[in-house]
Formats: sequence, C-alpha cells, structure tokens
Amino acid sequence: MQQKSIPSADYYINGILNKDRIILSKAITVIESTKPEDESLAEKIVHACLQTENISKRIAITGAPGAGKSTFINAFGKLLLDEKKSLAVLAVDPSSTISRGSILGDKTRMEDLVNDQNAFIRPTANSSNPGGVARNTRESILLCEAFGFDYIFIETVGVGQSETMVKNMSDLFLLLLLPNSGDELQGIKRGIMEMADIILINKSEKENAVAAKTAAAQVKLALHLYASDEKEMTEVLNISSTEKTGLTDLKNIIDLRFLKMETTGYLTSNRKEQELKWLDDTLMSFIKDHLNKDERIKTFRAELEQKIRAYEIDAYHAAKLLVQKLWGKDIT
Amino acid sequence: MQQKSIPSADYYINGILNKDRIILSKAITVIESTKPEDESLAEKIVHACLQTENISKRIAITGAPGAGKSTFINAFGKLLLDEKKSLAVLAVDPSSTISRGSILGDKTRMEDLVNDQNAFIRPTANSSNPGGVARNTRESILLCEAFGFDYIFIETVGVGQSETMVKNMSDLFLLLLLPNSGDELQGIKRGIMEMADIILINKSEKENAVAAKTAAAQVKLALHLYASDEKEMTEVLNISSTEKTGLTDLKNIIDLRFLKMETTGYLTSNRKEQELKWLDDTLMSFIKDHLNKDERIKTFRAELEQKIRAYEIDAYHAAKLLVQKLWGKDIT
Repeated sequence: MQQKSIPSADYYINGILNKDRIILSKAITVIESTKPEDESLAEKIVHACLQTENISKRIAITGAPGAGKSTFINAFGKLLLDEKKSLAVLAVDPSSTISRGSILGDKTRMEDLVNDQNAFIRPTANSSNPGGVARNTRESILLCEAFGFDYIFIETVGVGQSETMVKNMSDLFLLLLLPNSGDELQGIKRGIMEMADIILINKSEKENAVAAKTAAAQVKLALHLYASDEKEMTEVLNISSTEKTGLTDLKNIIDLRFLKMETTGYLTSNRKEQELKWLDDTLMSFIKDHLNKDERIKTFRAELEQKIRAYEIDAYHAAKLLVQKLWGKDIT
Repeated sequence: MQQKSIPSADYYINGILNKDRIILSKAITVIESTKPEDESLAEKIVHACLQTENISKRIAITGAPGAGKSTFINAFGKLLLDEKKSLAVLAVDPSSTISRGSILGDKTRMEDLVNDQNAFIRPTANSSNPGGVARNTRESILLCEAFGFDYIFIETVGVGQSETMVKNMSDLFLLLLLPNSGDELQGIKRGIMEMADIILINKSEKENAVAAKTAAAQVKLALHLYASDEKEMTEVLNISSTEKTGLTDLKNIIDLRFLKMETTGYLTSNRKEQELKWLDDTLMSFIKDHLNKDERIKTFRAELEQKIRAYEIDAYHAAKLLVQKLWGKDIT
C-alpha cells in the first residue's frame, strides 16, 4: 500500500527510538507538514512516541529580545552536557513567518551545543493549520521525549504571544530578565512574570553587581505582593551566562523542583491535566477555524457585526442567530 | 396576540425611558428570567434600549472581601448624588447561588443610596444559562444606561472569577486594596492588579497614615515594574470612605479619564470592540454548552479522555475525532 518514495511510520519510529537525530529531525518535518498525505503518518509517529517511557524535564525559557536567551541556553546547556546529560532545544516563534529563519534557536550563539551529539536544536516552523504552532511544538516535545533527551528546553520570545501556550506544555517556566532598573521590564507583558517558576536576572556580571542585586530585590518585592498559596514561591536568581555564575545553583534548583514534582505525583497529574486542556483548546481552534473558513457563516457574521456597530442588535442575540445558522437549528 | 397577564415590551421600554425605577427593576427580572416566553420580550427590551443615546460612565469596582467595597460605594455614591448625579449599582457575584442573597450590593452598607431617588441598587442574579451572569449583567447595564444614569458601578468580588468579564463591560476599572503590608494582597488574584485603571488604598484613615502611604508606595513600585505604553498609567490613590478623604480627587480623576476617552473617541470604539468580543465569547459559550449537553458527544468525549490518560491518543487527534463526531464530517 505504501509508496516507495515515502518512508513508513516504522522508519521514523525506529529511528527516534534508536536515537538517530537526523531521523528525529525528519519526523518533526513530517509533523509540521501541511500535506494531507503526511497526516496519518504524523499520527502514527506521535501515537508510538506517546507510549514510550522516558520522561524529559520540559522547561520553558522566555525573556524579552536581548535578555540573552540563546547565550544562556548555550552556557546552561553546556553545563548539562558536561554532566553527561542530553538536551533538546525547541525554539517557538509564532511571529516568524519564515520557517527556519527564526530569531530564536540562534545556532551561532549556541556554538557549544550545535556540534555535540547529545544536543539537538530545532526551531519550530510556523504553520497555517489551526493551532498549528502549538500542535507542532507539543508533538515535537513528544518525539524528543521518546528519543530520550534528559532535558527539553522550549524557547520563546517573552512578548506575550506564546507564553500561555508554552506554559501549558512545560513542567517548569523560566523567565530571563536583565539587571536594569524596573523600567527595563517594560518589554515583558503583564502576567508573564506571574507564570514564572524561576526568574533569572541574566547578565549579572561582576561589573553589574549592584544593578543585578537591585533588580533581584525589586523583582522579589513585586512577586511578594502577589504571593499566593497556589504554587510554590517563584525563585529569583542572579546568573551570568558569560562568567558562568549561578548556573550550578540553577541546575540544583531545577533538579530539586523536578524531584518534588515527581515525588508528589504532580508531574504526571499536571501533564494529564495539560493534555485534557489541549483537547479543549484544539477542539475550539478547529471550530473557530471552521467559522473563519465557511463563506456562508463569514458573510452572515459580517452582517451581524455591521448591525452590532449600528446598535441594531446586541451581541447576545447576534450570537444566538449565528449559532442557529451554524448548526442549522437552535441549540441554545 | 399578547396575553393579558404579561406586560408588553412597550410597557417596559416606556417605563425605562420615563425613569420608572420599579419598571426598570422588573425589566431586569425579565432579562434574568430563564422562562422561554420571556426570551423574545427580553430581546425587544434590549433592542430598544440599545438605540437610546445616553452614555453612562460604566465603572467596574472590585476588591477582596473586606476591602470595603460597599462602604466605599456608599460614600462615593453619596458624593455623586450630592452633585446631582444619578447612579446605578449592579452587584455581580457568580459564586452566589441564591439570587438576591448576594454578599455584594449590601444595602445595609449603602444606606445613603437606598432611599435616594437618583440611586438604584441591584444584585445580578446567578443564572444557569450559558454565559448567564455575563449576559444578565451586560443587558442590565444597557437598561440602566437607557434609563439615563450618569454612573453605573459594576461591583464584583476580586477573587478572579468575574474580573475579566467585568473588565470587558466597563470603561474604567477600579481596584480597592487595604493599607496593609504586601502580604495582604494575597487575596487578590494575579493579573487583577494589572487590569486596574485606578487603585484605591481604602481605609487610609489618619490613624493608618503610615501603613497607607507604605502600601501605596509598594503598589506603585509593583506597577512601575510592569509599566507599559499600552494603556495610561494606573493611578494609585489613598482614600478613606469613613473620613471621606480622597473621594473628590477620585471624582476628578474619573471625570478627566472619561473626558479623555470621549475626546479621543476611545470610549465609543472600545465599547464596540467589547461588543464584538462578546459576540465571540457568547458564541463559544453556546457551543461549549451544547457540547456539555449532548449525551452522544459527552460519552464520546469521556472515552477520548480515558484514552488520553492511558497515553493511547494525543490531544490533537482526539480533538479531530471529536469535531468529526460533532459536525458529522471532517471540518479540520
């Protein structure tokens, strides 16, 4: 049944399980593919990878442009590699329309990782599919986990477009800030700081010592105002990616966090909750996408929006009419 | 056509336009009604009210339990009444299951308002309709606006359940905090402070002067860390509802904000954006409600969730199957 030119699902699955990084990369390309013929192939690969047993530490890393994410990932990744750990870096950039041309996953700044057999760097291509970036990233994580990486870093630009998404596919959320005065946090969207499990004041080099300590104190105070019992207190750490300070402390904090999450069962239960939330989100994105594509619905919706703008109908009754048109009957 | 026992839409509409507070109250009851026969009546009332010209200042007021919301509304409302302004207070409490038994809109603490012809206090009853509380509150606002109130206060408990909703139906968002140390902000959910246009440190009585100033400074610092160009800087004000200090300043700040919003056209454009967002939100809540009610879908969904938990399927493909079942065909 299978065409000669297309490798089978087993080719990809075995390649991943045998730690072949080239096949892993090709498998991610299959997942990112929008070709209909790749759809069932992708499904089979993901299905097989779901059932493997390895648990990677899934860590989201974000920060404003210029916060030094790539340099940090290089330095911290190198420390992990030196400890014989393996590492995948998935760079998510929903704003980038040029696949592979992402400003993230900048390999020139990850020179210690690019040539190491135990590291894998991959920018997530943008996608026109509904919920495309999220799906591509999530499934890439599953493949990397099946491959057996100890750590998976999911890198995003902290400008508010993808953090909620990435929060919901990682176990731990790291935010990089700069050792500047409060004003400099302007690049960080409201709410992102609250998501962080660990905040790193990057570029805390010796020459910046005072500014670095001040920034850490300010951040701690701001966090303190929001302290809640809901989650463990956010930790704030001064680090330098160039002087390699604070990185071992960070490693210890991360490992301790994971140990706690594993011991309490939170790691597994949280991942299952995340997966169920993805079911909802994906379902809704399919429905929204359908609404945006169906010409009949689009036209009717545009008419309703005109009427709303002209105060001829209120949103509630407009929604009622729209859902009737959509379902062909009144389901409200 | 119309039954004798049911007043016509015109009865309600004329009553509202003639500033009859009893009929306004009855009309809100019609809107809150879940009886099918009230549905088209409600629609007619809302439709008529949409087209009236009065613009009320729609102000959301929130704060943790104990922050003194009712006492503040009484004191600030009294100041407005003394200036010959009129005022409606809508208290929204999604957690309350007993209609009229809300902990908000506490009339015993609004004694200066309850007997004033120019004030109207109304708790929003809970509702089992999809998006019920939101719909009831929004449409109550429309009715109060058509009635001609100068100010509409929408009061909520600041515990994170209804703030986003209320943010999207008000022009200005006020948050009440207490003059305590940072620890006491614990009752406020992350993100709510960021929504506020004006933060009031309530209970800033003379005897609390130091604590009150400290709290204001802490809040300003925390806000400063997030300063953004997106919206006007949040203002922080010390007030006392009992000593009546800071209330005139507040009135001036509010009026200035509205003057700016009106002059720039933001008030109207923002309200239209809000209405279009409501169209989306209501549509989605109808669809979600339908998913939750349809036994066939519910059963299938439960099966899929089991499979997700057992790592037999991933969320993406589960969502694809669910949407196929829902639409009777593949729309993805």
